[in-house]
Amino acid sequence: MARIALDAMGGDHAPQAPVAGALEALHELKGSHSIQLVGRRAAIEQQLDALKTSAEDRGHLEIVDAPDVVEMTDKPTDIRKKPNSSMMLGLRMQAEGKSDAFVSAGNTGAQMAGSMMALRLHAGLKRPAIATIFPTGKKSVVVMDSGANVDCSADELVQFARLGAVYAEDILGRSNPAVGLLSIGEEPEKGNTVTKEAHAMLAAARGTGINFLGNVEGRDLPAGTSHWGDLDVVVCDGFVGNVILKFYEAVAPLMIRLLVKEGVDEKTIKKALRSLDYSEHGGAPLLGVKGVSIICHGRSSPAAIKNAIKVAVRAVESRMNEHIGRRLEGAAAPAAAGGHGT
Amino acid sequence: MARIALDAMGGDHAPQAPVAGALEALHELKGSHSIQLVGRRAAIEQQLDALKTSAEDRGHLEIVDAPDVVEMTDKPTDIRKKPNSSMMLGLRMQAEGKSDAFVSAGNTGAQMAGSMMALRLHAGLKRPAIATIFPTGKKSVVVMDSGANVDCSADELVQFARLGAVYAEDILGRSNPAVGLLSIGEEPEKGNTVTKEAHAMLAAARGTGINFLGNVEGRDLPAGTSHWGDLDVVVCDGFVGNVILKFYEAVAPLMIRLLVKEGVDEKTIKKALRSLDYSEHGGAPLLGVKGVSIICHGRSSPAAIKNAIKVAVRAVESRMNEHIGRRLEGAAAPAAAGGHGT
Repeated sequence: MARIALDAMGGDHAPQAPVAGALEALHELKGSHSIQLVGRRAAIEQQLDALKTSAEDRGHLEIVDAPDVVEMTDKPTDIRKKPNSSMMLGLRMQAEGKSDAFVSAGNTGAQMAGSMMALRLHAGLKRPAIATIFPTGKKSVVVMDSGANVDCSADELVQFARLGAVYAEDILGRSNPAVGLLSIGEEPEKGNTVTKEAHAMLAAARGTGINFLGNVEGRDLPAGTSHWGDLDVVVCDGFVGNVILKFYEAVAPLMIRLLVKEGVDEKTIKKALRSLDYSEHGGAPLLGVKGVSIICHGRSSPAAIKNAIKVAVRAVESRMNEHIGRRLEGAAAPAAAGGHGT
Repeated sequence: MARIALDAMGGDHAPQAPVAGALEALHELKGSHSIQLVGRRAAIEQQLDALKTSAEDRGHLEIVDAPDVVEMTDKPTDIRKKPNSSMMLGLRMQAEGKSDAFVSAGNTGAQMAGSMMALRLHAGLKRPAIATIFPTGKKSVVVMDSGANVDCSADELVQFARLGAVYAEDILGRSNPAVGLLSIGEEPEKGNTVTKEAHAMLAAARGTGINFLGNVEGRDLPAGTSHWGDLDVVVCDGFVGNVILKFYEAVAPLMIRLLVKEGVDEKTIKKALRSLDYSEHGGAPLLGVKGVSIICHGRSSPAAIKNAIKVAVRAVESRMNEHIGRRLEGAAAPAAAGGHGT
């Protein structure tokens, strides 16, 4: 039984999409979870009425009035000036034990900053990372970091491997998740300076909770498999991760356009490529904070919000946050021996 | 009238694919160009016979006997030990004024090392870069670097912009090519340290032969256009470039598989996606060396070799190498003022 705080004001289609997504989630979720709609009460009530919300659904919904809104154009640190925004209030509820998870399609930078402020980081971490589920030709793969951190150290890439492995276990149900390091060749000596250093550290960390396969290449990501076997987690810095994710998002529409031009039926195409659709895979958790904070795409549809809420529930039920804390603690000693410089 | 040296022993399908590609090129090229087939004479003769080469074609072909072969598994520096390999001989012919360009589908690292040894670099450059033509939804885009350089400095990214612009002008016929810097947001302050520094330098270099648009994102690459307008050149370091290119190569086969599974006719799909096929766009020139060295994919088909030869001819005819030299010289003064640190 999880209590999920949802930013009703976050995203390009708020409050419509979040409120509709909350209702969809209630209908699909098993067990008596509750959703806390955080935002401007009047706007939320209006949406609930417009969607003819049943009394039963209302019993699982709580409205938490938040007069302020973090805008998509605000700077990340602007969230400090908006303590009564839906985003900051929703996160604070979790810090105060009044909620178990937070979900938002709002300003990603502000959500990161607010999550760090309200929830704080696990010991040993300097920054949180964003884990994105990447649809592939085989099982889906956790790609991290996918945009929160640029200029990563080898240390940080190793932390991403640990965080991603827990996520793959708890949310995707993978046992002993296989971790690959994104590089430009399979051999340990291929890559840039940080990647080569991370390869050595990850190889040394085998057996301390990281099932490290080796270097993987760009082609292995859509395939979901590599020279070393199938992948559960792919580690890269947030610059590379962000470029690839945005690239991937744009390739499918291009191909669809070319196929339709050639006379292929659009519905058939979309059905065929449905397994590659991000929204089917829910939001991207911000890993490293002491709590659950799920980041959704600004353009999220109700279905995407629904899936993000389901990811949040799974994170709470599987006690992902505790597992991350334990994994990082357990790793502290051997990792320090492995050459931590900071 | 260009003399193109072709590595007849380079690539997974050598000598068949290179020899067949040479013949295809002769049939398509206008003007009386000649192709110098460099490799083991007997193996080449056998291929020419098998392909029933006409006397007219033979008149445009020269066989240059090279007893040695650089293997795909050789280390780049191993080429030093093989001065009589098809690769090293082909490159040396150009240095000695006996040939105008070199094309190979062999070991890429060895081709880079050999090209630097035989042809040398233009003044002011520390390393050559690989320019890849990237098929998009609009015009094709030159992506550089696409794998020759990792851990690039901002300086180097600016050089890539200059090299890529000349390539887009001379080979793709673009006037005043539009250059984008690959990053994780459009704003100048988005990106990693090197990208932000490169943005400042490129902005300062506007008007010195670089039509710099601004930062572009992963999604702009398949689209061929950005917030700032259509793209001709996209600059990134070779780590990111290599990851994206390999990723792109693998996405299409995955989508084709999903579409075929859904009952879409494979021929129709391939016809629709033909414009995204790399082999249609020829090889990738190694830019920065004083000469023409075109790198082909190891798996190159005869059609891919043919297209690479056509790129080589265009590079020779347009005097691309001279233009690069002049552009780099012209830039030396203002670029130094812009903050060169090395």
